[in-house]
Amino acid sequence: MENLSQSNTASGLSMDECIRDCITCYQECLSCVTHCLSQGGKHAESRHITLMLECAEACKMSADLMLLKGQFAYQHCQICAEICDACAASCTSVDPEDSMMQKCADACIRCAQSCRSMAH
Amino acid sequence: MENLSQSNTASGLSMDECIRDCITCYQECLSCVTHCLSQGGKHAESRHITLMLECAEACKMSADLMLLKGQFAYQHCQICAEICDACAASCTSVDPEDSMMQKCADACIRCAQSCRSMAH
Amino acid sequence: MENLSQSNTASGLSMDECIRDCITCYQECLSCVTHCLSQGGKHAESRHITLMLECAEACKMSADLMLLKGQFAYQHCQICAEICDACAASCTSVDPEDSMMQKCADACIRCAQSCRSMAH
Amino acid sequence: MENLSQSNTASGLSMDECIRDCITCYQECLSCVTHCLSQGGKHAESRHITLMLECAEACKMSADLMLLKGQFAYQHCQICAEICDACAASCTSVDPEDSMMQKCADACIRCAQSCRSMAH
Repeated sequence: MENLSQSNTASGLSMDECIRDCITCYQECLSCVTHCLSQGGKHAESRHITLMLECAEACKMSADLMLLKGQFAYQHCQICAEICDACAASCTSVDPEDSMMQKCADACIRCAQSCRSMAH
Repeated sequence: MENLSQSNTASGLSMDECIRDCITCYQECLSCVTHCLSQGGKHAESRHITLMLECAEACKMSADLMLLKGQFAYQHCQICAEICDACAASCTSVDPEDSMMQKCADACIRCAQSCRSMAH
Repeated sequence: MENLSQSNTASGLSMDECIRDCITCYQECLSCVTHCLSQGGKHAESRHITLMLECAEACKMSADLMLLKGQFAYQHCQICAEICDACAASCTSVDPEDSMMQKCADACIRCAQSCRSMAH
Repeated sequence: MENLSQSNTASGLSMDECIRDCITCYQECLSCVTHCLSQGGKHAESRHITLMLECAEACKMSADLMLLKGQFAYQHCQICAEICDACAASCTSVDPEDSMMQKCADACIRCAQSCRSMAH
């Protein structure tokens, strides 16, 4: 964890790509919070909204730590990946037909993969 | 704005007191988001939840800038005060009988006063 | 401020473009903090580092509020533009020959323009 | 992790106490960033400043997730405790005679203990 290299040679993923995926996921999650609150009903249930807020914050923090070349950046990517997985599952379970939520779930899945690659 | 002094002699309010009021307001707003989402109905309407999230973020950022002794700290307190005013009004209008929301509104009003004192 | 439209017809700038410019500026500022701290000397002076941190936070918050379609998003863009202006000036004055800082200053100038367009 | 209870009966520590310790640690870390940047020299070395920024962010995020009663709150407290440990060690090693850094280290140690109690 001490030496934060620019790329993870095992996965071939660069840190810049992981930052990009985290930022895209943060944007999709916050946009989806607004969308789901306006939809109401099961879309606006506490557990789902909270999870999207957690995911947006975790992605933003992973990006922050990578940009700062912080020594805990990759360790934070590990928990971020787990939150992204849970958020993707929640979006899909709330409404698999909602295109906005599917877009959010796709961003979460991609970000989880990137974060997991960096963490290892 | 250039010289960030520790206290505003006109109001007698110290920066530490303003930081404390911002942090209390941030805490009350986030707790109230959770409360209102679980209540549902008008409590969970998009406009109200979003405003509490805006207020929590603004208070956190005002505290950040004051703690960092940033040159824009007091200017940020000005917009923070306006957001706090709007959040207090929203809490009161959604449900004036809800003690959790009244606690949030009280924290917003106090924070707005502190931020306005620092900004001037 | 009440009706947050997707675009500002006077400037032709869309909210998505402003969000993109805020996020680019946030990234450049945090990367530049790391760069300047490692350079030391005048690059690492308190006033300059703090200003880049203020700018990164302001840009992130502007993006947050626009993504949430918050009613204070455009008002926050106004103060964000002022912080970006100050950060660009600081980067240029600290070391006009440093390519990393010039990249940061360019992102700040672009973000200031976008935020000012949205605020009006 | 699913049921976020208000207290951890094993440790007797309440969530409110952990939030309080996280917020105190966040405040001490940001204040110490300002202090160390103005001191310069080894106080302002990249690795130390970055670690204090990481610690401030991690504490703020742990508080956020607990206030939102997020399902990943306690899991985040685990990584937060590790960051606090590292930050306390860094403060002590940079200058064990500096009272401001000792205050920061003390807040980090206390927060690490609280976060670890909540995480288990």
